Amino acid sequence: MAFMMIGERINGMFKDIGEAVAKFDPKPIQDWAVKQTQAGAAYLDLNVGPTAADRKKSMEWMAKIISEVSDVPIALDSTNYDAIEAALQVIGKPGALINSCPNERAKIERVFPMAAKYGAGIVALTMDKSGIPLNADARVAHAMELVAAADEFGVPTDSLFIDPLILPCNVAQAHAPEVLEALRQIKTLCDPAPHTTLGLSNVSQNTIDRSLVNRTYVVMAICAGLDSAIIDVNDETMVESIATADMLLNHAIYCDSYVKVFRQR
Amino acid sequence: MAFMMIGERINGMFKDIGEAVAKFDPKPIQDWAVKQTQAGAAYLDLNVGPTAADRKKSMEWMAKIISEVSDVPIALDSTNYDAIEAALQVIGKPGALINSCPNERAKIERVFPMAAKYGAGIVALTMDKSGIPLNADARVAHAMELVAAADEFGVPTDSLFIDPLILPCNVAQAHAPEVLEALRQIKTLCDPAPHTTLGLSNVSQNTIDRSLVNRTYVVMAICAGLDSAIIDVNDETMVESIATADMLLNHAIYCDSYVKVFRQR
Repeated sequence: MAFMMIGERINGMFKDIGEAVAKFDPKPIQDWAVKQTQAGAAYLDLNVGPTAADRKKSMEWMAKIISEVSDVPIALDSTNYDAIEAALQVIGKPGALINSCPNERAKIERVFPMAAKYGAGIVALTMDKSGIPLNADARVAHAMELVAAADEFGVPTDSLFIDPLILPCNVAQAHAPEVLEALRQIKTLCDPAPHTTLGLSNVSQNTIDRSLVNRTYVVMAICAGLDSAIIDVNDETMVESIATADMLLNHAIYCDSYVKVFRQR
Repeated sequence: MAFMMIGERINGMFKDIGEAVAKFDPKPIQDWAVKQTQAGAAYLDLNVGPTAADRKKSMEWMAKIISEVSDVPIALDSTNYDAIEAALQVIGKPGALINSCPNERAKIERVFPMAAKYGAGIVALTMDKSGIPLNADARVAHAMELVAAADEFGVPTDSLFIDPLILPCNVAQAHAPEVLEALRQIKTLCDPAPHTTLGLSNVSQNTIDRSLVNRTYVVMAICAGLDSAIIDVNDETMVESIATADMLLNHAIYCDSYVKVFRQR
């Protein structure tokens, strides 16, 4: 299947979005929603950021104004599940993503029934309170428990987006190949297989050439079974690399304009 | 292990080399030998090209003049095995590569004992007289027979460089993912595993952005188990991508200058 890009840009960590959230100014948020939609985003991440005074109110409002200008489903990115539920009610249709839920029982019991109720997908993290495991096997063990939880709470397995959690290569380099192996194994856990996802730019934190590290890792990850990632959908070299990887895996037919076709779909 | 780049540039198909071969002018050949050595080539491919009057004499001469300016081992690229043997005698030390031998009994009986005698490696092709198979399994079946032949003729399995043969993606796109799967399986055939190699630029024949297709495919192939390829070692974006893939697979330690380190090793 074709790769799904989750546009990362509507996040209060970015100055323009942070200010827009503080002032309830829709324009910068809607502009990025349109821009990322045109660039081919399959989901728009929505994160109110660390400075929002009222996360629930901000998230409801952002979900509303984004829905006004784009039909692309929203990935509701928060640790505040009440804020996410409020936004799911505003959205009022299935297909959104809840971003995210670790493999912790209390959070699973809050998130998974909510996902089933609203027809939402879940970004499920291969970690628990003890943190992110180093090796692939421990990541896959978490993934298996998350798949079992999906079954328990009536969430279709292909509504799970399992994130095996990539860390910065300059401080935790050994994780990078383990995540690739985890991706390979996660795609074999059940049928239909869960989707896989990564917060890609984490791999390149504080490296000298972030774009090179990001696009090289995403190509290897796609080869290993990654089918979505939170990325900068307006980074041309990244999008070209993803389109080319998709084409070379025979997920999309070669034509001379395949990169353009990928951007415009 | 670190990726081995086989420098493609000393090939009579290129105009400057073709002319140098015709005139027995050492300078262009030696210049490219030095330039590719400095760029980090692990092998220098040597192909007299289609226009050489006397392939044996040309190959002997080229092997001699390249050895005068570089210690990097030579990949003797010809279908004329007598020319290759003459060059192996000129080289007079182990470590060269014979490029190439398909899975055909008569050619195996000519090439494999010669490789054992001179301590040379072999680029062994996963094809026979019936051509290049489409699927991974048939490629791997050829690879198994080539590994068995290595055992039969006393060639160490890690002196085999098995080439699962990539075809142009714009006319034979379905081959690209099959080659990736073949690479994965070939690395599990025996211990020590054979090396793997590709004539990489074939994948991008007649595509619009050849460099993008080449570097994206090589990164996926490295992720799948490719540990060498015949490439343009002076293509900076290619070398950067290979260095980054090596680093992200934890084959080389991250440092801020890792790309430079890769080029200079």
